[in-house]
Amino acid sequence: MKGFFKVQTPEELYKKMERFRSLSFEVVGIEKSLHRILSEDIVSPIHLPEFPRSTVDGFALRAADTYGASEKNPAILRMIGEIPMGQVSEIEVKDGETVKVATGGMVPKGADAVEMLEYTEWVDSHTLHAFKPISPLENVIQVGEDVKAGEAVLQRGHLIRPQDMGLMAGIGKTDVQVFLRPRVAVISSGDEIIPIEEVQKPGQVKDMNRYTIVSMVEEIGGIPIFLGIAKDRFDDLREKIELGLKKAEMVVITGGSSVGSLDLTREVLQTFPETEILGHGVSIRPGKPTLLADVNGKPFLGLPGHPVSAMVIFHFFGKPLLKILSGLSKEVVWHQIKIKAKASRNIPSVPGREDYVRVKLEERDGTMWAHPIFGKSGAISNLVRANGLIRIGINEEGLEQGEEAEVILL
Amino acid sequence: MKGFFKVQTPEELYKKMERFRSLSFEVVGIEKSLHRILSEDIVSPIHLPEFPRSTVDGFALRAADTYGASEKNPAILRMIGEIPMGQVSEIEVKDGETVKVATGGMVPKGADAVEMLEYTEWVDSHTLHAFKPISPLENVIQVGEDVKAGEAVLQRGHLIRPQDMGLMAGIGKTDVQVFLRPRVAVISSGDEIIPIEEVQKPGQVKDMNRYTIVSMVEEIGGIPIFLGIAKDRFDDLREKIELGLKKAEMVVITGGSSVGSLDLTREVLQTFPETEILGHGVSIRPGKPTLLADVNGKPFLGLPGHPVSAMVIFHFFGKPLLKILSGLSKEVVWHQIKIKAKASRNIPSVPGREDYVRVKLEERDGTMWAHPIFGKSGAISNLVRANGLIRIGINEEGLEQGEEAEVILL
Repeated sequence: MKGFFKVQTPEELYKKMERFRSLSFEVVGIEKSLHRILSEDIVSPIHLPEFPRSTVDGFALRAADTYGASEKNPAILRMIGEIPMGQVSEIEVKDGETVKVATGGMVPKGADAVEMLEYTEWVDSHTLHAFKPISPLENVIQVGEDVKAGEAVLQRGHLIRPQDMGLMAGIGKTDVQVFLRPRVAVISSGDEIIPIEEVQKPGQVKDMNRYTIVSMVEEIGGIPIFLGIAKDRFDDLREKIELGLKKAEMVVITGGSSVGSLDLTREVLQTFPETEILGHGVSIRPGKPTLLADVNGKPFLGLPGHPVSAMVIFHFFGKPLLKILSGLSKEVVWHQIKIKAKASRNIPSVPGREDYVRVKLEERDGTMWAHPIFGKSGAISNLVRANGLIRIGINEEGLEQGEEAEVILL
Repeated sequence: MKGFFKVQTPEELYKKMERFRSLSFEVVGIEKSLHRILSEDIVSPIHLPEFPRSTVDGFALRAADTYGASEKNPAILRMIGEIPMGQVSEIEVKDGETVKVATGGMVPKGADAVEMLEYTEWVDSHTLHAFKPISPLENVIQVGEDVKAGEAVLQRGHLIRPQDMGLMAGIGKTDVQVFLRPRVAVISSGDEIIPIEEVQKPGQVKDMNRYTIVSMVEEIGGIPIFLGIAKDRFDDLREKIELGLKKAEMVVITGGSSVGSLDLTREVLQTFPETEILGHGVSIRPGKPTLLADVNGKPFLGLPGHPVSAMVIFHFFGKPLLKILSGLSKEVVWHQIKIKAKASRNIPSVPGREDYVRVKLEERDGTMWAHPIFGKSGAISNLVRANGLIRIGINEEGLEQGEEAEVILL
């Protein structure tokens, strides 16, 4: 029968996505590198720290001098100087001597530990009592202890977080090579869909998918290019898809949730050279009608028209596609931190599809509870009330009250 | 003793933060509202949907006509028309009649359910067999079922997510009132700190905190303004802090981890009128030396100079401060989704402080394991290897291997 097709599991579609490749790279200043993806390995040219540093405010000394020290029987030390911050000193500490240092300051030659201020007391301006025995290297960070020269500190494919920027700053990496951000053409479709500024005639619906999909692309670091609303006509669809393929590295179309328009989109795609349909239908709910194609190396994703289904499917297929193009390392593309929650009531499901039920998470007495938000898949308000999707496996008939399952955060 | 102060618990400091207030608002187009915070309640002016819509491709009919239908004994229906997408029809469905509709299309007057295409078969061009009994309202989303006119769909203080943009689009909300993004002045300090472009002399350290703190401000939606590196001198500190208070709604300074420079920053602050020191030292590790003040209504946060401590403290105190200024609702400011993980080995801790140990999370056989990354708090590479912080309570002496605890994602 026309319009029917072999439904695939998410895993089958994921496997087919591996054919897509990351884009080229550009060089940016590290101050602009937040949430970009490294396209080079970062190797430190220097030791970090470059000199032995104190991790506390206190007195640099030889640890052995403090052995056996106590409140009643303090170690007695001769104060031979102070090392100001940001400066090096040639002072050398010998047995029974000490030098004042601040947190982050240099620990002088001869000293192998730093006694904290709190455990000391001045006797006179040249004599200090230390009460606490410390071991060698205590409160000292040694040369290269943080990072060694020549060490690969960050790998190609890594998403740059604030701490990674800090590390690059520390080793003097001012510019960094990152993958280009993929441009994603976003097209809405459907004869009933109108721009939100327009006055609705009966039967018409404002274009919600433009806003949800464009902003999900932004969240994953893509550059969305919205191309407007296509009518359910061959020419209009073809024109917009062609423009998308020209302007962007990935094309996403929403609408076409009805069997007829899915077929139409598919027909349009097949007029482009080197098009391969990778999937048409996926065993996931909501969102079964989904179209995945490879158009001359560029991924094309056809999403259902219902806003909720479109978002769920973009979450499961659009995001990993975009992450692959972005150059993210394989482990990260397929990895997401999931949390576990218990169903606050019975949640029914029909076996044969992976079912993602919208839930509102609530922590009570240290347990995370998932309250299902039931409703038809077209109801965007349900997705607004939800902050997660609880997973019911393909062979399960639902979750019982109190049963634990994985939740994906929305 | 000078420089010593009463250490407070995080909760004590959090309570004091409640004095700060959100900023004013601006109006932006919804396409620019992602991750902004609503400063108005959103009330829908319309029903959503505005007409009864089909959620499937199929045939609108009276549910009662299908009662008792089966593969062998189908309901026989007379096809009286089709409703094209985006259009309204005056057709009225009577007993024994049906009208073809697509997903999202209007369900005509008289019909109360939609039989899915899959369960029908044409007999001739005007006659249809329906095999499956359905109930009234099945596969129909009714007028106002998603959102009712006059319903408050989103509240002031809500962080706008993709689905929220979709809902606003659906109800025709083109512009939205959001809180102004707080400007945050970021100052590095310390005589040993140099800009990363400069060639290091012995004893000097490149400014890592600029990059970590500025990008954390960005991640929370603030507008960072970096004001440079202050020397540990009264005049230099005062000049930069004064500029920060003029240019921004919040001031963050890093450095000053040593007792002396904390005192200096505090002295500087007290020269501004209407300054109140709210906290000086917090029972958290890493990061004990922390300064929180209210300078004429603006929050001032002094962070330790060690990059790791600075990040951890900014996470626990800078982020909530920024969220308060941003207008986020109270529940969200103090709420963070925590995941639970088991310690992969014993993790020791000293009671008396909340201890946050850097961990690398790994999922194995459905269990989340936290591998501790031990190291001195100055070592930024440890934070780069970590993707979470596991919490050891203020009265606990550590975690045993296999013991479960909360993890904050980094």
